[in-house]
Parts: sequence; structure tokens; C-alpha cells
Amino acid sequence: MSKLRFRIAMSLDGFVAGPSQSVDNPLGIGGMRLHEWVFTLRVWRQMHGMEGGEVNASSAVVEESFANLGATIMGRNMFGGHPGPWDKKNPWRGWWGENPPYHHPVFVLTHHPREPLTLEGGNSFTFVTDGIDSALQQARRAARGKDISLAGGASAAQQFLKAGLVDEMEISIAPILLGSGERLFDGVGDDLHGLELVRTVAAPNVTHLKYARR
Amino acid sequence: MSKLRFRIAMSLDGFVAGPSQSVDNPLGIGGMRLHEWVFTLRVWRQMHGMEGGEVNASSAVVEESFANLGATIMGRNMFGGHPGPWDKKNPWRGWWGENPPYHHPVFVLTHHPREPLTLEGGNSFTFVTDGIDSALQQARRAARGKDISLAGGASAAQQFLKAGLVDEMEISIAPILLGSGERLFDGVGDDLHGLELVRTVAAPNVTHLKYARR
Repeated sequence: MSKLRFRIAMSLDGFVAGPSQSVDNPLGIGGMRLHEWVFTLRVWRQMHGMEGGEVNASSAVVEESFANLGATIMGRNMFGGHPGPWDKKNPWRGWWGENPPYHHPVFVLTHHPREPLTLEGGNSFTFVTDGIDSALQQARRAARGKDISLAGGASAAQQFLKAGLVDEMEISIAPILLGSGERLFDGVGDDLHGLELVRTVAAPNVTHLKYARR
Repeated sequence: MSKLRFRIAMSLDGFVAGPSQSVDNPLGIGGMRLHEWVFTLRVWRQMHGMEGGEVNASSAVVEESFANLGATIMGRNMFGGHPGPWDKKNPWRGWWGENPPYHHPVFVLTHHPREPLTLEGGNSFTFVTDGIDSALQQARRAARGKDISLAGGASAAQQFLKAGLVDEMEISIAPILLGSGERLFDGVGDDLHGLELVRTVAAPNVTHLKYARR
């Protein structure tokens, strides 16, 4: 069966976004420091249409995280846009312009119903108002045997982790403190639901910890 | 100059002790799970007078953490005992009996003045009431050129980290969630004061992240 896979960058003190998150600054103050290790990578730059960049121990981890994905699930804040109900006349179309980097069906958890959105490059966004189980079911059907990426943010991740629905989790620990902001594991409790540490990758400015069911 | 070195085990969600810490259960509920990787090691068992045990990638990390130490600094709770002022008639002598495992001078941060305590095996405990700078100064003098171990707990560590006085820090991340308890980096802020990730060691049930000034 297709797996639900979750990858995120976290500070040493447990934050996945800095304080004062907003539509204009979704990572919060200092949150960009979580991702410095990835911006220098050739694989990441290529994905975003840029040349150059380096290859190091993080490269294979990043490549793996994008391989064999057939669908994505994300929280409302990852899709972005206004905090209120969708504006039907001028609906937010996500952060990414007309050709987002997913190239497969994306399911957005939200409380506000909205018609699906189809963009270029195989990207579609379906808005799911009836909870994580429904989102997972729809994503699994859409993924056609491939895996499903849980793209975050923290609140969506917490719901799936707490329900024991995550099959693989890669935490990329950035060697920084953020001091405040959004904590990845807030409210998740003391149970990893059978996820065990299966791989550690040391790379420049980051340590990747992969958890999976054995 | 001798370094101030700090080593501690932390859960993936940032806790160094579980909830409901007490004199009877200083690690709090579930806190023992932070240290499961160390109890199986031959080097740890030998230090505590036990036979057997295994050798793995953690062994060298643990050996290193005990090498070249000339003094130890610890918080009041690490020394243990009653939360109020010292009982002069029947003073608490620490958790460890008459021959503690330090074998060098130990400086205990406290608000309650008390005469120094000398035990067997080169162990002495000096109670410091005038703050972390004084404790560091006294420990440095006692260490005679060797390094100083900052033994915790979290509150003592936070004071030294916040003041930028820690020279080396080894965080041993246990692959578990505690969900609540005492957070290592609470109140430290967003600054590691020049400490950089210099080594990652993957070992069974733990990942050791070493930070130091370059």
C-alpha cells in the first residue's frame, strides 16, 4: 500500500517556523534559517529552475523525498492565502503561480468548502472539509499506488502524527535555535505510534533523521 | 584554557526530563527512556561497577565525554535532596552514597549556603550561592587546566547557554517523544553564541550532535 511520508526541517529547539508567521512571511521571523542547507543544493536549485549548486550528503535525501510521490496533503496555511473563507470572485491560487512544483493531485485540509482548482503541469488542488481520514482516503485513491507526501504545516502534521497515520517521517534538524514560533510536536503526546529511527544522515548544516515502521 | 563542556540526552521533541519530576523521580515520567541507549553500553556499565554490555558507536562518545575533566558544575536539582534550605543536622549527601562517580571537585549552584562536603574517591562538593560566573571561576581554578563538565539540569544549562559560556555541547537525541516535561532550550533565545554543529554520530537508538566553537 502507498505510504504517507512526511518531511520537514526543524530547529534544534523543536520549531518548524519562527514567531510572527503571516501570509507575507509564512516561515515566521528567522524561519528561513531552517532551510539554508537546502538552498545551496543543485537538486533543489534545478527543481526551481536555477543553475549551479552543490552536491553533498543532503542531495540523496532530498531526491528520495520527491521520488515515487502520487499525491500531496497539506494544511490550509501551506496552500496560503487569506485566513477567512475563500473569496469566490478572486480566489487565491496558492503561492506558486500557474505551474506549482507538485505535478500531481494535492489535497488541502480546510474548513471552507471550495471548488477544485486545476492548474498547469498536472497540478490540481482539492479542498477537503471533512477531516484527515477523508483527505488520506482521497489522496490514496489519487496516488494510484504511489506514496503520499504530507507537506505540513505543523498543525496538519500534528493531526496525522497523533492519529498514527504517518508511515515515514524525515526530520531535518538545522543546527540553530529559533527560541519561539511553531513547534512541530506540540500536542502530539508521547507516542510515535511505532515509528522508529531507521537512518541518520550527517550533512553540512543539517542532520537528517529518518523514522519509519520496521 | 579549559573548556566548559555540556552533554545531555534530549527527546526528539526537546525534553530532557518528563513531567512530574520529584526528588523520588528526578527524570520525571518517561524520562528514563531518554537514556536507554546508554544503559546497554559496556563503558557505562563498567563505570557503575557492572559487567557485560555492548560496544557500539555511542561508546566512544561516552568515553570522550568523561575524558580530561577536572571539575563539574551542576544545578541544585542534580545534586538532589530537599527543596528547602539544607538540614544542618542531617544534611543530604547527594544521590550517590559515599563514593560518587565524579572523583574531582563538584560545584553546586544553589541559593542556600552550606559548608563544603568531602566524600571518598576525590569527590568534593562546594555550594556556590553567588551565581554562574563565580561557579565557573571556582571550577576553572579547581580543574587545573582540565575541562569542566556542566552536568545539568536544564535550568543550570540554560543559564550558561544564555550567557554564551558553553564551549562544547553534545546533544544525544533519543528517538522518542515525551510530550511534556522540562525543555532543554526554554528561555535560551535564538542564539547559540557561536556554537556550530561539528560532528554527528549515528548509533543504535540515539543520534549524537556535537556543537563547538570553530
